[in-house]
Amino acid sequence: MNPAWTLASKAAAVEAALNTLFCEPEPTPRVRLNESLRYSIVGGGKRLRPVLLLSFAELGGCDMDAAMDFACAIELIHTYSLIHDDLPCMDNSDLRRGRAANHCVFGEAGAVLAGDGLLNGAFELMLSSTSPIAAEYKLAAAAELAAASGRLGMIAGQVIDIENECHRVSPTAADLTQLCRLKTGAIIRGACVAGLKLAGVTDPEKLGAAARYADALGLAFQIRDDMLDVLSSAEAMGKSVGHDAENGKVTFASLLGIDGCRAEVDRLTDEAVAALEVFGGDEFLAGLAEMMARRDH
Amino acid sequence: MNPAWTLASKAAAVEAALNTLFCEPEPTPRVRLNESLRYSIVGGGKRLRPVLLLSFAELGGCDMDAAMDFACAIELIHTYSLIHDDLPCMDNSDLRRGRAANHCVFGEAGAVLAGDGLLNGAFELMLSSTSPIAAEYKLAAAAELAAASGRLGMIAGQVIDIENECHRVSPTAADLTQLCRLKTGAIIRGACVAGLKLAGVTDPEKLGAAARYADALGLAFQIRDDMLDVLSSAEAMGKSVGHDAENGKVTFASLLGIDGCRAEVDRLTDEAVAALEVFGGDEFLAGLAEMMARRDH
Repeated sequence: MNPAWTLASKAAAVEAALNTLFCEPEPTPRVRLNESLRYSIVGGGKRLRPVLLLSFAELGGCDMDAAMDFACAIELIHTYSLIHDDLPCMDNSDLRRGRAANHCVFGEAGAVLAGDGLLNGAFELMLSSTSPIAAEYKLAAAAELAAASGRLGMIAGQVIDIENECHRVSPTAADLTQLCRLKTGAIIRGACVAGLKLAGVTDPEKLGAAARYADALGLAFQIRDDMLDVLSSAEAMGKSVGHDAENGKVTFASLLGIDGCRAEVDRLTDEAVAALEVFGGDEFLAGLAEMMARRDH
Repeated sequence: MNPAWTLASKAAAVEAALNTLFCEPEPTPRVRLNESLRYSIVGGGKRLRPVLLLSFAELGGCDMDAAMDFACAIELIHTYSLIHDDLPCMDNSDLRRGRAANHCVFGEAGAVLAGDGLLNGAFELMLSSTSPIAAEYKLAAAAELAAASGRLGMIAGQVIDIENECHRVSPTAADLTQLCRLKTGAIIRGACVAGLKLAGVTDPEKLGAAARYADALGLAFQIRDDMLDVLSSAEAMGKSVGHDAENGKVTFASLLGIDGCRAEVDRLTDEAVAALEVFGGDEFLAGLAEMMARRDH
């Protein structure tokens, strides 16, 4: 199947599963916690991370339905990080996925607690999953995601990012690469590796290949994002663009130039596709890497 | 052994275990994330929750050492909730455990991320624990703690508390009891029940008894706290007291009076001790409930 259709179909399945979450009545009338969680989760996004988790789980022989709680969990983690990132004391962003940021609608305290609720909720979902997967595999997959989102993964990236802003540091390409591997890359890597672990895969060669695919895809994704901030229209991106240059922000685009970025994205995409060889290749995952390299939003 | 000595000895073991956490070097020189996590964790506290988890694990036949990662995890969850609670957009407290609150030392963004890092870190610790406990039991215990700290437990309590403040609601004793069962009680209950589950206990009668012990202890603890805010000297409490009355805050003390509180604490303590019968009683846990009922700080 055309990888774009497969992506759309898997993302729609994730969307449907996410839609069943947090539907209980609120504990008291004034409380709007579930409403707030649903506001941020159901508000769109590419669902790239859950689709990666599902696809690597399938590659390891695990049924997509059985992996769905874990796929949703990774989207909850991603969404919590966006809510906290947008807070006034962090990036102070009012817009997210084309809508008002969570803190603009539910207040700052509400947004702190909504983020906490989603991060905690991700683990609730994984740990109480009734999916027919061995406890050992569930534990290994959840541990992988916990490490990816934790203080040596995504949170380290967020801290470094905040510190760079505070001290007006001008990062080199190597600094940006390290930041990207932590802030956005760790979760993408976690999604791919946890997918395999959920399927009971323990072969270090396969786990390493999933990590290499994820690292190349994640870095290419970020470089493409920086290119699009220069090239793209606000309409296509669904958010304001040209921000980076206006703010004098150092990005891959400002460091490597557009042609340099394009060459790097191509190189990384080849690397991602090559990493799939140990699985005998995978049409969808290879196509996904190529789609992400050429995307215009 | 005298329950005060047992408490001191178990708390010291927890302290030593907590002290081994987050000791890796920071990823870059300006980052102070581990320093921030250690600042808030090592800063004292009664360690009541981890001691409860350890004691119920032992009651179920599980070695204390084997349960230590889970005991530390619950203290990380408790500490994260304090860091986020103290934020300017939440309770805006500058003082915690006799020292400057985390956000006063590491900044607001730093405190948001430190809280996130501790919540995430609690799950990392549990899920990657190498303790020789069956994966199934680890999963059940971690799921219990996740539910306790989540949006239907502690976080629901925090949201209700914030809402009450915002709307200047005057709660009834029943409202305060519900709030206490969620905001502070859920984690205490989680500690006791997760301890048994870590030991592989599945008998609903025993799990229910642990929950009843915890509910009675947790509520008595809160009522005693409200009494102490009226009765105690600032010196003995290690924090300023008489705050509640000054702020016109409705507490168990203002609703029930000191004598009414005392009677309720006694009733709840008897209830906690009675709940231990299904285990053939437990000298330490009974003594602990009695100590908490009479504590003066």
